[in-house]
Amino acid sequence: MRLVSLDVWNTLLDINLMLESLVKALSEILKIPEEETMKKVIKTREKIKEIRKSQSGDPEKALEESQELLAKVFNVDVEIIKRATTKATLNVDENIILPGVKDTLKELRGKYIITTTGNVMFWSSAYTRLILERFGLAEYITKQFYSDEIKAYKPMKEAFLAPLNYFNISPAEAIHIGDTKAEDFEGALNAGLYACWINKDAEKVERIHERGFMVKSIEDLLEILSQF
Amino acid sequence: MRLVSLDVWNTLLDINLMLESLVKALSEILKIPEEETMKKVIKTREKIKEIRKSQSGDPEKALEESQELLAKVFNVDVEIIKRATTKATLNVDENIILPGVKDTLKELRGKYIITTTGNVMFWSSAYTRLILERFGLAEYITKQFYSDEIKAYKPMKEAFLAPLNYFNISPAEAIHIGDTKAEDFEGALNAGLYACWINKDAEKVERIHERGFMVKSIEDLLEILSQF
Repeated sequence: MRLVSLDVWNTLLDINLMLESLVKALSEILKIPEEETMKKVIKTREKIKEIRKSQSGDPEKALEESQELLAKVFNVDVEIIKRATTKATLNVDENIILPGVKDTLKELRGKYIITTTGNVMFWSSAYTRLILERFGLAEYITKQFYSDEIKAYKPMKEAFLAPLNYFNISPAEAIHIGDTKAEDFEGALNAGLYACWINKDAEKVERIHERGFMVKSIEDLLEILSQF
Repeated sequence: MRLVSLDVWNTLLDINLMLESLVKALSEILKIPEEETMKKVIKTREKIKEIRKSQSGDPEKALEESQELLAKVFNVDVEIIKRATTKATLNVDENIILPGVKDTLKELRGKYIITTTGNVMFWSSAYTRLILERFGLAEYITKQFYSDEIKAYKPMKEAFLAPLNYFNISPAEAIHIGDTKAEDFEGALNAGLYACWINKDAEKVERIHERGFMVKSIEDLLEILSQF
């Protein structure tokens, strides 16, 4: 194994804290209750996940489409969404780093090429980069790849192959880890990579496919990698 | 006059502080002297300004091209440039707001549609948005427009017409203010807008074109607008 590809949200960073921060910012700007805002954000997020699962969205405009969709739900100009994502980014704290992430990245550094393969929704990858930099994770990552930059989103093959092509690595020499089964696990397997599906309800590390594993958290990646 | 279009860097925010922050970040990551880094950054910036003046760059990829060019000058992966812009954004403080900006925006708010029309170089407009939000300027701006979002850069006509088309305003009802003569002043005049050129060496407000003024700072905009 030569390359480890990491999903970002719910693998390295806590998506719930970011969504809460976004909801707080949106509610403040629009002067509406947070509960109502959260329901709309969650519903829009699910809708976009469905669109991506069926690969029916335009990869060139995936970020903009998600922002426009959210703006439409709140009946506001997309400028409000952009401002809210900015505020949300400014307001998160280091609790956004999931447990075990830093120690795992420390173990991986120097042994593997480490990339992110991240889908972008509502906020630009520039803000994900800022959070990874601010809380000290960026230095462990060789190169970050995001859907708004490479114009392809998971589970599209192109999203997984972009980092491999960049580093001239074959799919069989790479493993991707992430929490969304369709996007991360099935997407990576379909592109020919090894894959790790983070399932919080898993009780132990389990091989569930010729090239696929189910794990509880990112820390289990070390055990899996030791087998290669 | 119905719409005021604002250049961002050197009109609202101090580009020198941002460049210094970028140079510091780059020097730290690459472990090279800041003086050497600054020379390379300045030289690359001038080169890109020339490319844009002649409108020979690809507007679809203007940000990426500027990042790639800088990466090439330092002989590093573009990832290093992206990380440095992230660090630079995190490290600037409120001194980055130029004198008189906040008071001027306060005066304009409610009386005009206020937009930014900004060219992006080295760092994503997401970071410019973050700085404007963090230091309390974003709330005065009706909608921000940037070259990496609208896929056109100043002095291209399209860059000036994008905000006007969005708000259905004719060029003769709009004024643009900025510090770079070719990009801001000549570009805006050429697109049919009124234009204000911020020239720090100017001694007084001066009409230098049928639709054009030379001013010392953004505060002079109020005097000019009072004539319409």
